[in-house]
This record gives sequence, C-alpha cells and structure tokens, in this order.
Amino acid sequence: MSDKFSIGLDYGTNSVRALVVKVHSGEEVGSHVFNYPSGKSGILLDVSNPDLARQRPADYVLGLEESIRGALDAAAERPGFDRALVIGIGIDTTGSTPIPVDADGRPLSFDPRFTDNLNAQAWLWKDHTGHAEAAEITALAERIRPEFLAKCGGTYSSEWFWSKILHCLRADPTVFDAAATWVEHADWMPAVLTGTEHPDVLKRSICAAGHKAMFNASWSGYPDADFLSELDPKLARVAASLPSRAHNVSEPAGGLTAEWAQRLGLTPGIPVAVGAFDAHLGAVGSGIRPGTLVKIIGTSTCDLMIAPTGEALPDIPGLCGIVPESVVPGFFGLEAGQSAVGDIFNWFVDVVRPEGMDHEHLTEAAEALRPGESGLLSLDWHNGNRTVLVDQRLTGMILGLTLHSSPAEIYRALIESTAFGARVIVERLEEYGVPVERIVNCGGISAKNRLVMQIYADILGRPQMISRSKQTPALGAAIAGAVVAGESAGGHGSFGAAADAMTGIDDAVFHPIAENQRVYDRLYKVYRKLHDAFGVEGEQHDLYGVMKELLQIRDEVRH
Amino acid sequence: MSDKFSIGLDYGTNSVRALVVKVHSGEEVGSHVFNYPSGKSGILLDVSNPDLARQRPADYVLGLEESIRGALDAAAERPGFDRALVIGIGIDTTGSTPIPVDADGRPLSFDPRFTDNLNAQAWLWKDHTGHAEAAEITALAERIRPEFLAKCGGTYSSEWFWSKILHCLRADPTVFDAAATWVEHADWMPAVLTGTEHPDVLKRSICAAGHKAMFNASWSGYPDADFLSELDPKLARVAASLPSRAHNVSEPAGGLTAEWAQRLGLTPGIPVAVGAFDAHLGAVGSGIRPGTLVKIIGTSTCDLMIAPTGEALPDIPGLCGIVPESVVPGFFGLEAGQSAVGDIFNWFVDVVRPEGMDHEHLTEAAEALRPGESGLLSLDWHNGNRTVLVDQRLTGMILGLTLHSSPAEIYRALIESTAFGARVIVERLEEYGVPVERIVNCGGISAKNRLVMQIYADILGRPQMISRSKQTPALGAAIAGAVVAGESAGGHGSFGAAADAMTGIDDAVFHPIAENQRVYDRLYKVYRKLHDAFGVEGEQHDLYGVMKELLQIRDEVRH
Repeated sequence: MSDKFSIGLDYGTNSVRALVVKVHSGEEVGSHVFNYPSGKSGILLDVSNPDLARQRPADYVLGLEESIRGALDAAAERPGFDRALVIGIGIDTTGSTPIPVDADGRPLSFDPRFTDNLNAQAWLWKDHTGHAEAAEITALAERIRPEFLAKCGGTYSSEWFWSKILHCLRADPTVFDAAATWVEHADWMPAVLTGTEHPDVLKRSICAAGHKAMFNASWSGYPDADFLSELDPKLARVAASLPSRAHNVSEPAGGLTAEWAQRLGLTPGIPVAVGAFDAHLGAVGSGIRPGTLVKIIGTSTCDLMIAPTGEALPDIPGLCGIVPESVVPGFFGLEAGQSAVGDIFNWFVDVVRPEGMDHEHLTEAAEALRPGESGLLSLDWHNGNRTVLVDQRLTGMILGLTLHSSPAEIYRALIESTAFGARVIVERLEEYGVPVERIVNCGGISAKNRLVMQIYADILGRPQMISRSKQTPALGAAIAGAVVAGESAGGHGSFGAAADAMTGIDDAVFHPIAENQRVYDRLYKVYRKLHDAFGVEGEQHDLYGVMKELLQIRDEVRH
Repeated sequence: MSDKFSIGLDYGTNSVRALVVKVHSGEEVGSHVFNYPSGKSGILLDVSNPDLARQRPADYVLGLEESIRGALDAAAERPGFDRALVIGIGIDTTGSTPIPVDADGRPLSFDPRFTDNLNAQAWLWKDHTGHAEAAEITALAERIRPEFLAKCGGTYSSEWFWSKILHCLRADPTVFDAAATWVEHADWMPAVLTGTEHPDVLKRSICAAGHKAMFNASWSGYPDADFLSELDPKLARVAASLPSRAHNVSEPAGGLTAEWAQRLGLTPGIPVAVGAFDAHLGAVGSGIRPGTLVKIIGTSTCDLMIAPTGEALPDIPGLCGIVPESVVPGFFGLEAGQSAVGDIFNWFVDVVRPEGMDHEHLTEAAEALRPGESGLLSLDWHNGNRTVLVDQRLTGMILGLTLHSSPAEIYRALIESTAFGARVIVERLEEYGVPVERIVNCGGISAKNRLVMQIYADILGRPQMISRSKQTPALGAAIAGAVVAGESAGGHGSFGAAADAMTGIDDAVFHPIAENQRVYDRLYKVYRKLHDAFGVEGEQHDLYGVMKELLQIRDEVRH
C-alpha cells in the first residue's frame, strides 16, 4: 500500500500555514504560508485603543485555499505523493478568537452592513477590550459560581470568549443583536471545509469551549443561563445558541465538501477533524505524554501537559485551564502560558529600536554576558500575566538600570524575565502534584535561538529539548487528520500511536550550567519577590533590599 | 572711570569654561571652552569597574591657560575691553574631586612613577569606588559621631572626600602613602594661580570642606583624629595635614603670580577668590537669595538655597549639607541634588540609542504626549539617589511597559521621573520650615529644553524661571572675582550688591497647567510609593495597585 498523507492547517496570529505530512513517518513533504492581507500584519488595530486586535474572517477563507494549494503544489514535486493519497485534514487556530455569525453561521462581516465594523470581525486572542467585563465575570463567578473559576485558574481573562461577547454587547449592541451566535475560529474553519457552519450542526471543540468558555461536563456544559443573565439578560440568548456537547480532536467535524474537494484537488468526503487551538495541537506535534511539559514559545508562550482522566487531579490556582480531552482523548489537558515572550523581544528590537541592533546582533552581544553581571532584572508582563497571576492589568518593568545599561544587557534581562516567568509555572505545577519530568520546546524561538534555550536550561535548572518538527502545530493538526482518517484508511488508530510514528526530538539538548544556575537561583528569588509584590493582592513586601541584592550579585560576578 | 572686568572659571565634568564679565552690568563679553583631552570626554574609565571615574590634573592646568586666553581673546574684540581692566578672578569646579598631592602640593600624577596610575589622578565627583567605605564611615558616625551625619543628610556619600581617600588607602596603599595630603580640585586651582599650593599655606574652601569632608565649626573643623583613626589609623596622618580653618568665596586665595600674569597678559597680584563648587557659584550667578531655590540642571542636578546664619535652622534629613557661608557669607548654604538628570536622558539617547532619535526628535515626539497617557513611570536612580535617600546603591527603574511603549514615551517618563525626584526635595525643604517661594533654573537643560521646564512646572506645581545667563557657574565665579577685588578696585562690596548688578531672569517663565497638574499629582503618589518601597529601609508596602493605577490613569487620559 502506498504511503498516505494528511494535511495540517495552522492559523497563527499573522499567517496560516498548511503542511502535508507522510502519515507513517511524520516526514513533512510540502508546506506553504499565506500572510493575512488585512490590517497590520493581518491584525486590524485602533490607534485610540491599544487593547483592540481584530481579524477579517475573509482572510481566513482566502488563506484556507491559498495555503493548502501551495502546500499541495510543493508536495507534488516529491516522489510518491499524489493528492488522492491525502486521507484527512486537521486544523488549529489561535484562541479565544470568537466570530459573531448570523443564523446560517456566516460571519456578520460578510454582510456589507458590517464589513467595516471592527466589532463584527474575529476578536483576536490578544484583544483586551473586554478587561472590565472579564473583571465583572470573575467577580460574579466568585460570588455565585466559584466552581467556574476553579477550572480556569481563579480569574476569567479578558482574552476569553465571554469577556469579548459581553464587551460587544455593551460597546456595540447593533453587532451583538445581529449575531445569532458566536463561533470560535477553531470551530469555524472545519465547518467551512465540511459545510457544517449552520449553528444547529456545527461541532464545537472541547479545547476552545473548555479552556475559554467555562464549558465543563460537571455543570452540564457552558455556563447556565441564570449566571449569564445576571451579567446581562441578553447573554441568555447566546447561551441558548450553544450546544450541550463539545468534541475532541479525535472526532471528525464532517467530510470535505464536494466543492472544496474540487477546488483543492482532494478526495470528497475525507474527514476533517474537529478544530483545536494551535498550542494544543503544537503539543501533539511535539509528542506530548504524561510527565512531559511542552512549551510552545512564540510571540507568547503556551505550556501544556496531559494527565490521565482516570486519576484525580486537584484544581491548580492560576492555571488557565484543566479540561478533559482538550489535547488528546483519555487525558486532561493542563494549560498554562505567558502572555508575551517573543513579543517582548520584538518590542525591544522593533519599537525601542536600539540602533544597528537586530535580534542577531543583540543575541550575540547578550551571549557574551555572564548571568547577573548587568545588575538588571525585568518583569515579563508587557502583555499582562496569564499564569499564575491571570491578570491582564499588569505591565512590564525593568529594574537595576544604570547610566551604563546597554541594549544587550536589557535584551538579556528581557529573555531572563521570560525564563523566570516560565519557572513560576513549573513550580506551581509541581507544587500541585504534577511532576515535570521532561521539557520539550517548540516554536520558532526554540529552534532559532540557542541563547534563549541555554538561559531557560540555566534558570529552570532542567535540560531543554527541542521538538524535531519546526512546525509542530501544523504537524499536530496533520496528526489529528491521520487519526480521524483511522487505521483502516491508512492513518492511525490513536494519538499515542500517531505520536510515536510522527514526532521526535532534536539531537541537541541544552543542559543547565551549574555556575549559571547558582546565580540565577539568587536572581529568581528577587524576581519572585517583585512578582508577588506587584502581582498578588493584599500582600505587604519589604523591597528595600532588592536593588542592593542585584548590585551585590553584579559586583560578585564582575570581580 | 572705565568699566572693570572680572574672570570666572568654571571647571565642569568634561570641559572648563572661562568667562570675561563686565563688573557693573554682568554683561558677558568673552568666553572660551576647553575640552579636557584625556580619557573619554575628559574622564579616565576602567571597563572592569563601572564605579570608577578619574581625571588628569594636567588637563586642568592646560585648560586654565587655554580657556582664559581664549576668553580674553574673544573679549579683546569688544570695545572698551582691555586686559588691564581685569580686576579679579573666581573659580568653581566639580566636587568632591580630591587630588592626592606631595609635600609641595604637587599632584602625585605629575610624578612619572604615578602618571599612569588611576588612583593618583583626581577622583572625579561621580567616582563611586568608595561605596563600601562610605557605608563604613556612615556606620561609624552613627555609632560615635551622630552629629557628623546630621549635617550631611544622615548618610555619608561614596562621592565624597573621605570615602575616596579611605578607598585609596585600602585599594592602593602605595598611592595613599605617597600622598602628603589630599586637595579638592576647587582648592587646587586658585592655589595654582596664586602660588599657594604648599599645604601649609593653601586655603581650603568652606564649600568643599563643609559639604563633602564633614568640616564644621561646631566640632572645630574636620573630623577628629580619633574618629578617623577608628576607620584606619593611617587616616590620622591625613587629618593632621588639614587646617583648622576653611574660607568662603569672599576671601582671596592670594594674588595672581607674576608668572601667570605674564602668561595671560593680566595684572600681577589681582586677587583670585577662594574656590567653590560649580553649583554653589552657579546659584550665585542665578541671583540666589532667601526663599529662592536655584536648580542647576545638567548631567546631574544641584539644588541650592540660602538662609540667614542669624536664624535657627533644623537639620533636614536627607539633605546633602547645611553649611554656614558655603554659598555666600552671612548665610547658611543648603544643598540638595539629584545624582543624574541630563545623564539619564543622555543614557537613553547615547547608550540605548533608539534609531533615528536624537534629543531633538525625542523631545518633539514626547511633547505631543499628554501626561499619563503612556502608562509609564520611572525611578530616576540610574546613578543612585543623592537627596533625600542619600544612597548610591539604588538603581533606575521603568515600570508600566507594554508592547507598545515607544522611545518617546520612555523619554518623557525619564524626564518626568527627574521632576518627581525634584518634587521630593522641595517637599522635604518645606516640611522642615524652609519655604520655597521662587524657583530659578539654570544650566544647559533649563535653557535648551522647553519640554523639561514645562514638565517641571506641572509636576512641581510652581512657575519655573530661567536664569538670564546661560553660564551661571562661570558668572558666579566672576562675581566672586568682582567681590574679592572690592569696591575700591571698581568691583563690588558684597555678594548682594554684585548679584543685583550682575544677575537676572529670562522673560519667559513656565507656568503650571492645571489639567496636567491634576494628572501628575496622581502619578506623584505612585512615584512616592515606589520611592519609599525601594528606597527606605524597614518599610512594608502593598504595591499590588501600582500597575493598575497607572493603567487607570492611562485609560482615563486616552478616552
């Protein structure tokens, strides 16, 4: 039997990537990236409101066709490939990125009345316009539904589903009233390919629903109408539009429509998996298994672990979500994350713009510095803090500045701050009985930046492995495509079998350097003190020693 | 009788300026700047030790001749000027900038054995190598001589005389042993011109001695030998080399030597005033009087007030010094200051180097921002804090950073931080019964940067006036030259009369804008909280609200 292939589609923040993968080996035989044409790098912004970030659903559809075509064309140049051998498709997207749709499931922005209305577009994950509403939802849940918060880290985020919908209701009632329901980007794309957009038949992903929309089987699905009505009576209508079930990525959203099959040259009816978030399928593409923390390091970071659903798992304060089957069936998905990582490095290079210093120059100069010698310490909250503080209303900080503090020193301090943030997450997981035995990194930064990986090894005090694939979310999506196709079609019978066959680890592993670890352990104590002082409510701190300790470490390292 | 002239010499951090002034009107008829040729912009640095900053005494002598010659040449082009009409000379320098000298009063660095030894040079004011020794001196004084600390703000600084000498004793005993005594730069220059370098006849300035060397008439001069011996027995030898009297700027150090008179074309024997620090004579050149705070804003800032010696004055915690006659005879000199102001703006432009942004571009862009709209807040401690915390072991901070924080926003936040620091000083003065009725600014930044002055007006909530002269320290030195010459020689009989005749204020005054004041009053509360949290020992603070308050202010200003 010929080798079979599956397609993974990965909708990122600025572009969509399609990847054609050999099902039996994970070999990547063709890929293509399509940049969203609208706005600034695909994002619609509002100069008067830095919290706003939207995207055009039309860009997503255009990208669907262009990226798959491009990837298939690339694959077609490889021996043994044929479009007829493609047996399944999987899709991941950013999230929570809800789209208001009409009664037929069409995005409101397709209606000329709303084409230019920012509120009728997709509300991109990093849109924070709903921060007041997030606080309101958190406060109400604390009062009457504390169980909702326990599953999402204690605080409902402004990045999430209900904050955005409630903010739209308040800020633009016309758009809210025109929407029959709201659909996650991750749910909409499989529906488009399989003709299942209609709200009555659309399958919603457990990944999106569970992590972002307070969906949980223990309270029969989405939040109850009473709770939502208390926020605003009009929300009850949205509640009524949502199903009582959600689906994991081992289930098909449907079969590829004849129209799309023809347009793409694929076989009609091949299964398209239920969608999931990029990070979750990135973890799948990195070979996630119990005890392995997968860190997807990009503009932001998502940290994922899985734990068998058969065993008891406590609620972990500050974790974005613990959702059964949100990553793979049979396991809880545990999600943590950092709201900005690469974005912070990019801010320094692209916005502050130290003259003549791009990432490469800064990395080279920062690599020559020893831990602690700059005396600088930074808080990595330029885009808020997702885990463990779950607070968008936090900001970045650089401390320890002198008249000699150089761009390379600042750049290194920014990298270190993200590693300290990562350590807080690992410590929180272990504190609640989830041992982190192995860390696998994926995403552009892990593959490209040796300095970042070495700093992570030194600060986390653990070896850092790198996923073999450089496009793990797309690979994870392709794995989902291979699993929904099933063994009988030449795919895989389970995610475990698919991961064994299709994923792997780079030979190069970054090991902690003991001397660096010693300095970083001291710096981490200072970081933790600042973290708690600015980030935890109701605590009193004595910070007098902070600047002195940093100077002390600096002097010891230098002399 | 023809108009008479006096010469003011102003030794700054990177250059020396000579100014020829008409005694009866203050008109500036000629000036010349000489840049110190050695090191980086005149400063000898050590890459392995960022605390170190030294200067070559030979540069000072070269500059003496070059700058006076140049100024006289320029004056010679003006009608009515003649070298024979120059009746006196005054000199100011930076400080504390002590120089180790031999038994004849010659700098050790003139000896070939020591020419290339950094420790044998002048220890520039901003050299902080003696920070451990400063802490040691403070601790000892707290224990056995608390009265010493009461006069210098509660903490003895690493920038000062004894910290530097004690550090030299520890770090380089060969240099320490070779030095017969240590002479302030401000004392050495008048001695050079008048041939009074020999330690037995050299007149030491009350300004330098009182503000930096713990000299006070109430304990009979410099610190006693017992105190110094407790720090190190070898310090007693330095104590023995110091006189029991110190002198104010109304006294002549001596008369111009025949040799210098010939070299410069001036009249032999014309009086050269006892030296003083640049800031103190800058205050004189700005027309200081009771109730007027003179702010000399340059790379760092010095704030000066005077109060009649006839009235009781409490010790003011955190003030660098309260010294009788350190500015003008008959008044206490009250000195406060900020360790870095222009240096912080320069750091951002010259070290961080945001691409395409010089001071002019940044000022223009920062001027377009409204107070509070960036959400940023900075601590102006890049070079420690001189007043009111008196702590070199503090560092700068920027808080409120987001992924959008722009260079102009950061630049404005840095300016604002120095204004908040200035407000802390004014509040401390008033709290202790020294009313600030009028603020006169001088120094390069006050003359050149409208934005800085408007922000100071808004944050301090008081009109900001600008001194008419753009070279006030040199003008103040020239005033001292006119006063030591005396009325009989065509000079002035007192500093009051000289100031009335020779100083003035610009027509343009910066007035506070009420709307800005309201926002800045809120931001100042946040600044003050951070100031106390990081700067005051033994306090507990709840900082959870800090980032949120800044975002709240930002959102209110933007919407």
